[in-house]
Amino acid sequence: MATGTVAPGNTANLPKLTFEELRAALRRVGEERYHHKHPFHLRMHEGKLSRGQLQAWALNRYYYQSIIPIKDAIILSRATDPAFRRAWRKRIVDHDGDEGRNGGILRWIKLAEATGLDRDRVTRADEILPATRFIGNEYLHLVRTRPFLDCVASSLTELFSKDLITLRMEKLRQHYPWLASGLDYFEARLTEAPEDAAFALEYVFDHAATRADQERVIQAVRDKCDILWAQLDALYFAYVEPGWPPPGAFQIGANRD
Amino acid sequence: MATGTVAPGNTANLPKLTFEELRAALRRVGEERYHHKHPFHLRMHEGKLSRGQLQAWALNRYYYQSIIPIKDAIILSRATDPAFRRAWRKRIVDHDGDEGRNGGILRWIKLAEATGLDRDRVTRADEILPATRFIGNEYLHLVRTRPFLDCVASSLTELFSKDLITLRMEKLRQHYPWLASGLDYFEARLTEAPEDAAFALEYVFDHAATRADQERVIQAVRDKCDILWAQLDALYFAYVEPGWPPPGAFQIGANRD
Repeated sequence: MATGTVAPGNTANLPKLTFEELRAALRRVGEERYHHKHPFHLRMHEGKLSRGQLQAWALNRYYYQSIIPIKDAIILSRATDPAFRRAWRKRIVDHDGDEGRNGGILRWIKLAEATGLDRDRVTRADEILPATRFIGNEYLHLVRTRPFLDCVASSLTELFSKDLITLRMEKLRQHYPWLASGLDYFEARLTEAPEDAAFALEYVFDHAATRADQERVIQAVRDKCDILWAQLDALYFAYVEPGWPPPGAFQIGANRD
Repeated sequence: MATGTVAPGNTANLPKLTFEELRAALRRVGEERYHHKHPFHLRMHEGKLSRGQLQAWALNRYYYQSIIPIKDAIILSRATDPAFRRAWRKRIVDHDGDEGRNGGILRWIKLAEATGLDRDRVTRADEILPATRFIGNEYLHLVRTRPFLDCVASSLTELFSKDLITLRMEKLRQHYPWLASGLDYFEARLTEAPEDAAFALEYVFDHAATRADQERVIQAVRDKCDILWAQLDALYFAYVEPGWPPPGAFQIGANRD
């Protein structure tokens, strides 16, 4: 327990959930814990964030974007089934791109540039909040150390992302029209995320042998929601209210030395 | 860079620092980044925290206390010199205790009990902030993965703790007299921490072969300060201002279900 997560309740003897029941249980987790309800996002969607606050968001979230293919490569490295690896490596291509097209990381950089940040400043990532780094690293730690099923399951917040991204694109265009040139990242995720989620959901359903396995799947999604949520807590604290970035972190309006 | 820390500047060709210069450089890091300046501690010392806020602090900080001997055991497991291990294992005894005396973890539990929390609720650690867990785990990650010298160096925030603990004990007695029965933890740290810091400082000075090694020592202390600081950011955000604990975390005044 010390370094892990909350133990699932004593449900090991209950019958296995059907596919629909599992999906519904995951949706309940999302309803309660996914970051669509986070006050930072609520303010974003109400048009109440300043350009500087959106810069802080883009700058910090870049770190998270930058480690996603590393996360997926760790999962790939632990997968013993070539068919699984073939399906999963799409995620790495989606983020890193190939000769033919840009990947998600470059699209995120374009979003950050649309907020007015220099590309170099974004990719150096040396002004991000320490908490952003720590919380991102927790995700890498999860996929390195937890059972493989949990690692696949942790991606299932993608079940919830389409609604959030659809709303966000509408609201960003409405309230921050100067950002419009930077929205390609979200456009691509609208189709990528649901495809990926469908594959992962089928995988975890097929490979959870017991109800206890299924409970671990649900817990992994809870843990992943906590990772997303905690990133926004740190952003809100540093840049919205009370608005105290820690020593050395990005300061709104300040140039780099 | 993606999962690590900020690279030290281009100082590899500079002359090595003397013992006094190294100590002074570390003190400058402490002055800038150690959590004695954190607004949560400032409020604590001004008597402005409520009992519930002190409960949230004791509950979350318990998690950190509980992993310290794990952190030290990881360092022990990486140490090849029996003399080093003999010196370092004192830290584990200090925290875990032995037949003859209580350790720091039990003393911290007593502090948490003095705030009015049940021991069970504290040690279960299932109401802590996810950020508390993620940030604590980052410390374990650091001592698992960074060069051994950096791991020893990361303990050197203990160079700064005596002044903070001395002030804290005075202020806690003054502003929260109902906590007085719980201060044994700090009393013990007043002598343990300076002994430990003196050993670790000598070790890193003797084993840093180059200026670049010394710069890594300084960076490790900076990183450790960031870990301590980020924990208080998360506490402040959740329980002081704006006061939004994430889904599932400890709520001030709420009983457990």
